[in-house]
Amino acid sequence: MKIAQVAPVHERVPPRKYGGTERVISYLTEELINQGHEVTLFATGDSITKGKLVSAVGRSQRFDMSKQEWLMYQCMMLDQIAELAGNFDVIHFHTDYLHFPLLRNLPVPHVTTLHGRLDLPELAALYRHFDQVPLVSISNTQRIPLPWVNWLETIHHGLPADLYRFNSSPEDYFMFIGRISPEKRLDRAIEIALRCNTPLRIAAKVDKVDEGYFNETIKPLLGHPLIDFIGEIDEQEKNRLLGNARALLFPIDWPEPFGMVMIESFACGTPVIAYRHGSVPEIMEQGVTGFIVENQDEAIQAAQRIHEVDRAQCRKVFEERFTVKRMAQKYLSVYQRVQLGNELNSGAVYGQQNPAWRTVVHTRDFLPRGRTPARS
Amino acid sequence: MKIAQVAPVHERVPPRKYGGTERVISYLTEELINQGHEVTLFATGDSITKGKLVSAVGRSQRFDMSKQEWLMYQCMMLDQIAELAGNFDVIHFHTDYLHFPLLRNLPVPHVTTLHGRLDLPELAALYRHFDQVPLVSISNTQRIPLPWVNWLETIHHGLPADLYRFNSSPEDYFMFIGRISPEKRLDRAIEIALRCNTPLRIAAKVDKVDEGYFNETIKPLLGHPLIDFIGEIDEQEKNRLLGNARALLFPIDWPEPFGMVMIESFACGTPVIAYRHGSVPEIMEQGVTGFIVENQDEAIQAAQRIHEVDRAQCRKVFEERFTVKRMAQKYLSVYQRVQLGNELNSGAVYGQQNPAWRTVVHTRDFLPRGRTPARS
Repeated sequence: MKIAQVAPVHERVPPRKYGGTERVISYLTEELINQGHEVTLFATGDSITKGKLVSAVGRSQRFDMSKQEWLMYQCMMLDQIAELAGNFDVIHFHTDYLHFPLLRNLPVPHVTTLHGRLDLPELAALYRHFDQVPLVSISNTQRIPLPWVNWLETIHHGLPADLYRFNSSPEDYFMFIGRISPEKRLDRAIEIALRCNTPLRIAAKVDKVDEGYFNETIKPLLGHPLIDFIGEIDEQEKNRLLGNARALLFPIDWPEPFGMVMIESFACGTPVIAYRHGSVPEIMEQGVTGFIVENQDEAIQAAQRIHEVDRAQCRKVFEERFTVKRMAQKYLSVYQRVQLGNELNSGAVYGQQNPAWRTVVHTRDFLPRGRTPARS
Repeated sequence: MKIAQVAPVHERVPPRKYGGTERVISYLTEELINQGHEVTLFATGDSITKGKLVSAVGRSQRFDMSKQEWLMYQCMMLDQIAELAGNFDVIHFHTDYLHFPLLRNLPVPHVTTLHGRLDLPELAALYRHFDQVPLVSISNTQRIPLPWVNWLETIHHGLPADLYRFNSSPEDYFMFIGRISPEKRLDRAIEIALRCNTPLRIAAKVDKVDEGYFNETIKPLLGHPLIDFIGEIDEQEKNRLLGNARALLFPIDWPEPFGMVMIESFACGTPVIAYRHGSVPEIMEQGVTGFIVENQDEAIQAAQRIHEVDRAQCRKVFEERFTVKRMAQKYLSVYQRVQLGNELNSGAVYGQQNPAWRTVVHTRDFLPRGRTPARS
């Protein structure tokens, strides 16, 4: 199959360090190539792939790109797609919604994976308008705010099976990995570790927007001898630190759409103690890959009995449910569905040919007779 | 002719107070309708037109719309255009570059007027990529940073002939109208007035971004009895204040792409003293509509001999060069040219059918044999 993967222009594929979306795009792209498909990656010019690369911008510019430049380069990339679309059997977008206006006249089947949170109120108007665009969610919980859109499938993220090594004999510490931000609740992780009298290692990056929170709320907690703040780490360090940990603490306080670090932890054989938010209940298996908790007391009880969890079982869940091979298979089946849908609609998955298509218009006497503006 | 006018979603058409682009779109739309054309305006739902209105957003949101929402609504509007394009003979965009990726597959002739300054370095990469998109500039000076793009025409803005009344007997004061910002140089206008011992009336708005500049640099200058700071004004007040003024002071220090207030002043019969920047030399006629100056001494000399300028002559220049009727005629001739180009290219003004189209791609072995990535 000839497949286009369309990445955001913020960050290289794969990303240098942090960048969940770009990592998933990279894993998926290389796995599809391994399975014999012809994949073209639309991404920054410094991206790395065994496939073909088409770029609107020479290098990733995460750290110095203004909003204006981001929009410019994304527009240039979308035009490259409009130009080259005829070369593909399917186009897979990972670029939020900026490409949606292009889709109506795109002569090729397509699907869009939404990687972000969808519970922001202003998104409802957008997705009311684009409610026929074929979408994939990365968890079922991610869909909740927008149940009426054209969801084709939920496809959980997957990792290369050999990316993380299984570790059956960990050391005696807990691990926290993630951004430092209020919704990640590192403060809870610190409290859990201290109340269990167990060391906590923290691999975390601080975004500019979170510097105030870090300095005021988190920094004062880092002085304790049990707490070891490491900073940002790469994949290799993550494998070692996460694999050696007794458990990963994931005490989030927001509707996390997926939570890659949970399945990374499973891959190492490291169980997870996670608060019941967002995708946690569908990623975790209670008592099998760790514990889902609702408050700090439950978290501390869970931490104290974490040795009951079979680390080999964690790895087995990873291999059964969260490898890139399984993710690629599910995407291939979605690609086949949109191809079939395209044939049935003779030329477009949706669009003017499709009577189900609706547009939210505020209009006076514009639309053809017999046509009612939907939800205006 | 069936014409679509596509406005930005920031502001109503016409705008409530400030908003040069939206004013021009409104004047052009209503004039085309007066001339018997069928015009559809894509704009915010609270816009006012005798034509048809299609809106993606209920009301203009200039003051409370986030960047994210602006992008959302603009995407929804672009999709409405993709859906309804077949209803028009020509589509006229006023939305910067966000619609460019849509153009390649748009089955209808189109033209884009660029309303903003183009001398920002990051725009070069964008317009290198989109160098076949048919464009209209609002002055010749606006084109200078991007000489290689597909400019079809320069069309100066125009005003309804009866919008401002001619005033042959002004009072003895100078006028300043505009945003308060460093590049508008209100400080120079104040110095000119004081050195001429002539009152200055200032009708100006202060954007949030310019509050610091206003408080530090401008506010201390406003205490003098000759200086009268009025704040933001509407069209009627502008007519009265500008028409009664001895001269408009326009001591700008940036490449102003057009400068509507100059032709408003001509319409009132009020001459202009303008610094030689941006569009000033092509809008002004030296000694006829006022004086073009290079420094404060020249400005003050000009202010002292401003009575030599024939106010009736200013109005005559306005009527000959800057009415909306003339602007609409020039746009109609551009619409005819893109229609003709479209027929010659059998289906698109540019695009895959047009061998001149080039894409800046950074690619490895992607493009068909014999095709060289341009300027990569």
